[in-house]
Amino acid sequence: MSTLIEYTDARPEVREVYDDIMATRKADWINNFWKALANDPATLRRTWESIKQIMAPGALDPLTKELIYLAVSATNQCRYCMASHSASARKKGMTDEMLGELMAVVGMANETNVLAAGYQVEVDEQFKSSH
Amino acid sequence: MSTLIEYTDARPEVREVYDDIMATRKADWINNFWKALANDPATLRRTWESIKQIMAPGALDPLTKELIYLAVSATNQCRYCMASHSASARKKGMTDEMLGELMAVVGMANETNVLAAGYQVEVDEQFKSSH
Amino acid sequence: MSTLIEYTDARPEVREVYDDIMATRKADWINNFWKALANDPATLRRTWESIKQIMAPGALDPLTKELIYLAVSATNQCRYCMASHSASARKKGMTDEMLGELMAVVGMANETNVLAAGYQVEVDEQFKSSH
Amino acid sequence: MSTLIEYTDARPEVREVYDDIMATRKADWINNFWKALANDPATLRRTWESIKQIMAPGALDPLTKELIYLAVSATNQCRYCMASHSASARKKGMTDEMLGELMAVVGMANETNVLAAGYQVEVDEQFKSSH
Amino acid sequence: MSTLIEYTDARPEVREVYDDIMATRKADWINNFWKALANDPATLRRTWESIKQIMAPGALDPLTKELIYLAVSATNQCRYCMASHSASARKKGMTDEMLGELMAVVGMANETNVLAAGYQVEVDEQFKSSH
Amino acid sequence: MSTLIEYTDARPEVREVYDDIMATRKADWINNFWKALANDPATLRRTWESIKQIMAPGALDPLTKELIYLAVSATNQCRYCMASHSASARKKGMTDEMLGELMAVVGMANETNVLAAGYQVEVDEQFKSSH
Repeated sequence: MSTLIEYTDARPEVREVYDDIMATRKADWINNFWKALANDPATLRRTWESIKQIMAPGALDPLTKELIYLAVSATNQCRYCMASHSASARKKGMTDEMLGELMAVVGMANETNVLAAGYQVEVDEQFKSSH
Repeated sequence: MSTLIEYTDARPEVREVYDDIMATRKADWINNFWKALANDPATLRRTWESIKQIMAPGALDPLTKELIYLAVSATNQCRYCMASHSASARKKGMTDEMLGELMAVVGMANETNVLAAGYQVEVDEQFKSSH
Repeated sequence: MSTLIEYTDARPEVREVYDDIMATRKADWINNFWKALANDPATLRRTWESIKQIMAPGALDPLTKELIYLAVSATNQCRYCMASHSASARKKGMTDEMLGELMAVVGMANETNVLAAGYQVEVDEQFKSSH
Repeated sequence: MSTLIEYTDARPEVREVYDDIMATRKADWINNFWKALANDPATLRRTWESIKQIMAPGALDPLTKELIYLAVSATNQCRYCMASHSASARKKGMTDEMLGELMAVVGMANETNVLAAGYQVEVDEQFKSSH
Repeated sequence: MSTLIEYTDARPEVREVYDDIMATRKADWINNFWKALANDPATLRRTWESIKQIMAPGALDPLTKELIYLAVSATNQCRYCMASHSASARKKGMTDEMLGELMAVVGMANETNVLAAGYQVEVDEQFKSSH
Repeated sequence: MSTLIEYTDARPEVREVYDDIMATRKADWINNFWKALANDPATLRRTWESIKQIMAPGALDPLTKELIYLAVSATNQCRYCMASHSASARKKGMTDEMLGELMAVVGMANETNVLAAGYQVEVDEQFKSSH
């Protein structure tokens, strides 16, 4: 297990990121993921800056982005990521029904991905020109 | 590569599923995935019935479901699934901007999933009670 | 793409492995996987020796072992491995019906694996003592 | 972690599935996987109906199907699935020797899948026409 | 397949990134990965800036970083990534022997990862305090 | 969880491998991975012999090999493997800075692998002839 860098022990460049995380999220604590990344301040900063930019509203709304994040995390079987991002998604409005349907799609997509590979299905000509 | 079962060569129980796929999708052709599954009619029927039920509107709208499907397929690096479901998603309204943002979230989620695992981050107590 | 080492160009220690592969498999050709591994003769020999030992009859018969191999290869979406091992499995008696049922189980297992992860299911006490 | 729906708290449509699971398995308890899926009754029913159908005897016997299930679960590193399905497999006759050989094949298949990808091996012409 | 944005058709903010890629790499062409990302200029810029920073010399030398990149790409069975990063690694000094040993370690690590999961091995107390 | 075979309970052929592991590693204990594999002595021996051969100095030095091992283990999200191999890597000289940079490369490689797949990028002609 990696050492978790607490706020009080953190170097100024780490504290600066922690402060921005808490301000952006309107939260008064930092979750373990960032405390672990703080072992490598460059990765901490780059990852946080990227996430802040990527998860902001755009052509997709923030809740849809959280649902996509959860879909990836379930597929990768990342326990930490499921725990932290289902909390974020709930804050942004995800209901139990939405999570249930999300997991149904994710399960089915993983099943059909494997069936497509197992049956070695060739891409249809129609899809090649689909854009 | 598995044999693709064409409509004209298909047994009645396979044709029935093909007919339902085309009627549901308002399409006049069947893509290779189903023609491959038709080698095992029970799997063809069960998979189609499940997809039809799961992808229907519910707490999540059909486009959001297609985006989730794409997120899983990119994560699993399933070429066929990316090709076929990006076509479906476009039909349901996905724009280039939406796909761009989807891929940005998917890429970032895969990066942070691995960072969480690599740093062996423990789930925060706050998330355990988050529901 | 890696260079494929043909029999006529192969060093003696590579030829020796090629000869054993053809003799063991009662075949008169070497498939590309081995020709690629031959770039690193130590890996070629070790991999072949391990496969020969592992795939031999034991508590599980050779066909069951090939089915297990296919299950892993479909899950990993390894196109080459599906192509080469479905050929081996057919030689050992795999029928279309068996492949169909195999893929159905593999698809379902991939779906439920992801559901178990996504719902963050804890292992039941009963299973912990199941052995 | 998702809430586990206990039998006494379950809605009638969930109890009906629970009853069928216990009857089919000749068991007097429900494992956590189903109690988690019960948060989404449609997924609970569809998943159970599919598993019941897929794992039934057919061209492959039920033990072989459990072995295939385990092969997928080990490959996906799904702890819950390994725990629950190794219990099922033992009930259907899996011995320690069989599990040992299964894991040997699964490990080797994961190794060779990656070698095939890493060396970017092209599918042999002979395999393309192998069916 | 995504549209590839050629230099002559690219918007100024895309050209700027292309110019920096070519200058940094001392190359006179842009590979397809960047031309595809250019569909989403924000992702193009962020990804390139991150890669430039991460792959620069630091506590690990650039060749070691390329080897690590290749190890991940083989594990993920990403054909494009193997092709492009084995070219970069060769430029930085990777020999055939080094690639052979890399693939041997990668294959073995994938095998033992799965064995550890399949046998559900608990982390030793000694490793918990290993840092 | 699989039974862990302790030295005192081990059969002679298992003890022989345990002795060689401790002698090679200059350690006076056996970690759980080997105690689990010992349930299948043939897999225990073959895996140990392979690892000993593969991880020995060659065209790549032992520390580089451990870094590659860690890159695979983080990508596969194998907790046990991260714990055991980060201990080995530290013994061979891995510093916190090196681990931080390793994880940055691994995270980025996982992100770009998925972007390459999601955008369905074709391999450039230049890379096909890159060897």
